[in-house]
Amino acid sequence: MNETRYDWLSDRWVIFAPNREDRPDQYRHSQSNAPDEMIECPFCSGHEQETPPSTLVLPEIDFDETTTNRNVDSTKRLRVPWQVRVVPNKFPAIPRHEPFLENDVQSRFHASPTPIVSASAFGGTSGTQLQTAQADHLFQRKIPTGAHEVIIESPVHVNSITALSVEHIAVVFEAYRRRLNHWRAQRDLKYAVIFKNYGADAGASLYHSHSQLISLDFVPRDIEKVNQRLVLHHKQYGCCYICQLMNEEEERQERILYSSEHFVAICPFASRLPYSYSIIPRVHRSRYEEISHAERDDLAIVTKKTLAALEAAHPTTAYNFVLQTSPFVDSNEEAHHWRLRVIPRLGKVAGFEWGSDCFINTVTPEQAAKTLRANIV
Amino acid sequence: MNETRYDWLSDRWVIFAPNREDRPDQYRHSQSNAPDEMIECPFCSGHEQETPPSTLVLPEIDFDETTTNRNVDSTKRLRVPWQVRVVPNKFPAIPRHEPFLENDVQSRFHASPTPIVSASAFGGTSGTQLQTAQADHLFQRKIPTGAHEVIIESPVHVNSITALSVEHIAVVFEAYRRRLNHWRAQRDLKYAVIFKNYGADAGASLYHSHSQLISLDFVPRDIEKVNQRLVLHHKQYGCCYICQLMNEEEERQERILYSSEHFVAICPFASRLPYSYSIIPRVHRSRYEEISHAERDDLAIVTKKTLAALEAAHPTTAYNFVLQTSPFVDSNEEAHHWRLRVIPRLGKVAGFEWGSDCFINTVTPEQAAKTLRANIV
Repeated sequence: MNETRYDWLSDRWVIFAPNREDRPDQYRHSQSNAPDEMIECPFCSGHEQETPPSTLVLPEIDFDETTTNRNVDSTKRLRVPWQVRVVPNKFPAIPRHEPFLENDVQSRFHASPTPIVSASAFGGTSGTQLQTAQADHLFQRKIPTGAHEVIIESPVHVNSITALSVEHIAVVFEAYRRRLNHWRAQRDLKYAVIFKNYGADAGASLYHSHSQLISLDFVPRDIEKVNQRLVLHHKQYGCCYICQLMNEEEERQERILYSSEHFVAICPFASRLPYSYSIIPRVHRSRYEEISHAERDDLAIVTKKTLAALEAAHPTTAYNFVLQTSPFVDSNEEAHHWRLRVIPRLGKVAGFEWGSDCFINTVTPEQAAKTLRANIV
Repeated sequence: MNETRYDWLSDRWVIFAPNREDRPDQYRHSQSNAPDEMIECPFCSGHEQETPPSTLVLPEIDFDETTTNRNVDSTKRLRVPWQVRVVPNKFPAIPRHEPFLENDVQSRFHASPTPIVSASAFGGTSGTQLQTAQADHLFQRKIPTGAHEVIIESPVHVNSITALSVEHIAVVFEAYRRRLNHWRAQRDLKYAVIFKNYGADAGASLYHSHSQLISLDFVPRDIEKVNQRLVLHHKQYGCCYICQLMNEEEERQERILYSSEHFVAICPFASRLPYSYSIIPRVHRSRYEEISHAERDDLAIVTKKTLAALEAAHPTTAYNFVLQTSPFVDSNEEAHHWRLRVIPRLGKVAGFEWGSDCFINTVTPEQAAKTLRANIV
């Protein structure tokens, strides 16, 4: 049974998912980023029955998002070609959210091993009276609810999203938009993150180009903290942090690797890992889900161009990308600004970083931007 | 030139050290944890001249810690056998601290590209008046001062510290104690962390058993935060968090992998990575540097036994260990409690973790403790 546990000292929840030990890993016995081809690919066209039924298929084929498809054989719908499929993760970090079984969710919730104590009860303020020593706060846990989906980006067995056409990548971004909107409509979910693990060093276990969505019934503490900083910036400086940063960077030009009609790609001034960059929309918008069609299509171009530049500069690098969008319930629209962060895994995170949370980066963002700019085609 | 840069959004300083790109890396062209033996080992006995002059040699041989040895040929002193040598890192993340050149340090400090603005000016509280938009806060940087040393743990070419005798490991821990005391006496330094990178996946670049010390002129924000939590715990519950945790874990026994006269080794209830554990001293002491001889010798035994168990359970795993001790200047002695954290690198940190700072751990600490316990000899 998956559960989340609260680390009192760092004030963070950690997800325990022992079931994920059993997931297939094409890279497990590999010493390089070359996958073990003995494990058949469940994401290829023709293998649709090896995944749970789709929650979204694009382009849309006789598919109605508003109905539940739990009892429908989705493979029947897939006789015609698809470009992008979204399926529940077979080995979810967070058990699948079942909006139609709210009572059941409730009972699972209350069946958690120890009573749930709100983390916020321990945050920052101390009571007027000192509490007597008791250990309940040391061992808080609960059964999480949320969602864990896989976005299968192509019916054919390609590894990198850059192998797809920009039109096809735009369909991937459209799938992100729809699934975020879907989960945001579930009233008990608070947050979602979409991410890609590319290459074994970035945590990929399957070769076939895919990304993932995890939605949670809580906002992770560090996300909350960043959001508080964004609100603080708006209060202190009277403008959005990201908007101001983008303007300043455009003036300086030294950390910009690419810019388009709708986006600017920037190597951040104080990035923690070499060659990291963020793709930032010019229009201030707190939620990715509200992206326009024109932006979505342009994002496909910028993503493909910049990732291809990274792959050209560092052909064997693994990377993650992460779509940071506003938590589902948040009234600070003027302070938040969504962005797509790309995090190459060229350096190793070592003991100093684990011990201090202070990172040593061996490549300046000015150098990284210069190298990536030179590889844009 | 190395510098630190402030990431306003995450409220963290990042160290930029482009010089470290040039350091030798025996694992660079390796696809596994097997090192490239073509790079000769600068840490072996007989190669002392390939490192900067020692700052400490144990057992002590005609060595006076109180005098500067910058102009002395240290190799002359090394004709007799040594067990542990400490040398400045040849490719330091933080430039070497020169206590004899304080004016020079001052001038380097003020020569930083932009004026230094205190990070704390932006922390939490907003001024009574809104400031007008200005970009200075976006691009804060400074020239760091501190220390970066390598603790060479053996004159012979062994990889793991577990290959050394417990008496020899006790000398390594004695070196930690002395160097921490040395840097703590430098009035402009605020913090130090000692850490080990074992194996390429944990960030090691050289095979020969060694650890490192980095001392900083600031306390990293996340260390500060953990310390604030420790103080909060003391205030709220009237006792040290670590002491209480140790007592509770000893009662439960399910996450304890080893215990001795002076230490308890525990897999933390909400650890972020599989098989992590902490070695915690039974005696409440905020600073490792104040460890007794008996504790130091026992720590050598506990470290060797538990790391050997980890290596037996997961023969190819890389790991980090990190000695967490109190910042140099801190008056909350009753709230802090030093500990040695061991962080195996069995899982990959993937996009979800980078995007949310929320970790997915596939091994419960109860299972990890059980496996490690079974491998203790």
